[in-house]
Amino acid sequence: MNNKQFLLKTRPIGSPNQDNWDFVETSVPEVGDNQVMIKVLYISLDPAMRGWMNDGKSYIEPVQIGAVMRASTVGRIVASRHPKFVVGDYVYGHCGVQEYAVVGVEGLHKIDPTLAPLERYLGVLGMPGMTAYFGLLDTGLPQAGETVVVSGAAGAVGSVVGQIAKIKGCNVIGIAGGAEKCQYLVDELGFDGAIDYKTENVKKALRQLAPKGVDVYFDNVGGEILDDVLTQIRMRARIVVCGAISQYNNTTPVKGPSNYLSLLVNRARMEGIVVFDNVANYGKAAAEMATWIAEGKLKAKEHVVEGIEKFPDTLMMLFKGENMGKLVLKVASE
Amino acid sequence: MNNKQFLLKTRPIGSPNQDNWDFVETSVPEVGDNQVMIKVLYISLDPAMRGWMNDGKSYIEPVQIGAVMRASTVGRIVASRHPKFVVGDYVYGHCGVQEYAVVGVEGLHKIDPTLAPLERYLGVLGMPGMTAYFGLLDTGLPQAGETVVVSGAAGAVGSVVGQIAKIKGCNVIGIAGGAEKCQYLVDELGFDGAIDYKTENVKKALRQLAPKGVDVYFDNVGGEILDDVLTQIRMRARIVVCGAISQYNNTTPVKGPSNYLSLLVNRARMEGIVVFDNVANYGKAAAEMATWIAEGKLKAKEHVVEGIEKFPDTLMMLFKGENMGKLVLKVASE
Repeated sequence: MNNKQFLLKTRPIGSPNQDNWDFVETSVPEVGDNQVMIKVLYISLDPAMRGWMNDGKSYIEPVQIGAVMRASTVGRIVASRHPKFVVGDYVYGHCGVQEYAVVGVEGLHKIDPTLAPLERYLGVLGMPGMTAYFGLLDTGLPQAGETVVVSGAAGAVGSVVGQIAKIKGCNVIGIAGGAEKCQYLVDELGFDGAIDYKTENVKKALRQLAPKGVDVYFDNVGGEILDDVLTQIRMRARIVVCGAISQYNNTTPVKGPSNYLSLLVNRARMEGIVVFDNVANYGKAAAEMATWIAEGKLKAKEHVVEGIEKFPDTLMMLFKGENMGKLVLKVASE
Repeated sequence: MNNKQFLLKTRPIGSPNQDNWDFVETSVPEVGDNQVMIKVLYISLDPAMRGWMNDGKSYIEPVQIGAVMRASTVGRIVASRHPKFVVGDYVYGHCGVQEYAVVGVEGLHKIDPTLAPLERYLGVLGMPGMTAYFGLLDTGLPQAGETVVVSGAAGAVGSVVGQIAKIKGCNVIGIAGGAEKCQYLVDELGFDGAIDYKTENVKKALRQLAPKGVDVYFDNVGGEILDDVLTQIRMRARIVVCGAISQYNNTTPVKGPSNYLSLLVNRARMEGIVVFDNVANYGKAAAEMATWIAEGKLKAKEHVVEGIEKFPDTLMMLFKGENMGKLVLKVASE
């Protein structure tokens, strides 16, 4: 059986491009003892992928040159030599950017296609949802009545952060690029306000929408927007550092927040999060989020692109801000 | 009675210089109801003074143009129309850079010259000591066996931070400028290691002295050193943002920490502190610090310059790193 795969060919300098990938066709290996063969149906596109393409230590090993690109996936078991998985099971795992994967079962878990569309397990019910849930609640510590600001607000993580903050009784402001996204945040997701960073002065808009200042800032973008928000924080504000997508393709050093001394003036805190730390509590979080979805309080949106061959261009949509909701690549239907 | 005073004449651009001050001689005003007249004996020189000279909102109001420069002081009551203070009482207060002050009693408190030299109430037993105590213990949260790094380590705050960290059983590394200061930290104060940032590569030296990484970083300086330490933090590290003396005289924007995403990779936290938030607990802290001093575990060092007319040059010693221990200006003996 043939298997189309994207291998990392070279490490990008700045934005990734076609030259960083080898798109190859190989044979699917034999299924060994305690292994399963998975047909990949959906591949998750995540900003973190850019970091995995770099050499050097981070919270996870870099993808090696010549290896299949790492990716979270949803797929179906098509062969099994492990007692816990049978053909036909749907599973979440990290199968990479390829059509088939033969893997051990560590890190695989079964998902139920009757409870939610499969792609949703890569979004609200997957890592982005967990990131939003734990990052906001455990590190942002939002209290009812407080003002929560989130950047990348129309993205997979940001859109969930804002909705959970609304559920918790906060005044929620999203920062996103473009009028369409901003309208979506307010009209569809119930945010109290939205700022289009492409056309608005973020600092000025924040002063209008949050005249008392910002209690919690959930940062997905870094760069100028982080600096703008830092000028508007309140006493004992919490800044959750989840990502910095504006900086991932830099060829110059990351722009550090010039206004970080606002942390001092305001006795505020900036703290980094990595979702994997909460793996023991994913179940509890998923159950609560599923309840919110059922009650109509939490809306899920996926942005689906079809065709594994489109992987390089689809990845770039993230950095160009072209996705609305969770970006996934559909590889196969069944 | 004549009174020599330093008034703020102009706001500095970059480093303060003689032109920013009016050194005037005025008459001491009458003592009103519920007021006291204080003869200033010692004036505290603090990095925070540079911020007070700027216009614009901070954690405290700027000093107005034409006003006496704000300063913490130790003095003696020479006239009193308040029942709680009598002539001869020694008091800590904020009397400013002048020989005499006529003030209300709010913010004044009596100090005992038989328990410690008067100048010490501006150092270990004053704001710098309180800053070190609460900043390290309540925000840095050092645990025995952890590695604590402090910059500005030979200064009023840093030298106390390092010694308290030693008392708490930590491995303590100080960063300071010059061989003399570094030797003082290790030989006199018992630090486990010291890095001379003027001649050593801080990142490399940290890798040698703290091969497992840094658990707590107490930052008094900001700039490149903050960025260097950020590359060496451990998981769940705490960075206490107390000051950024390297940036206070900038004419360009503050250098934000380019390596702040190390907070994310390491699930670490950066938090600002202002000592005044702990005013309710100063007494408890002072008592504990006095015990440590009595037991020989905490050493105090003051750097005394004599003559109120030397105020402008003495202030600059802080920014040039010329002081070792708490820098104070002696105005009068009795």
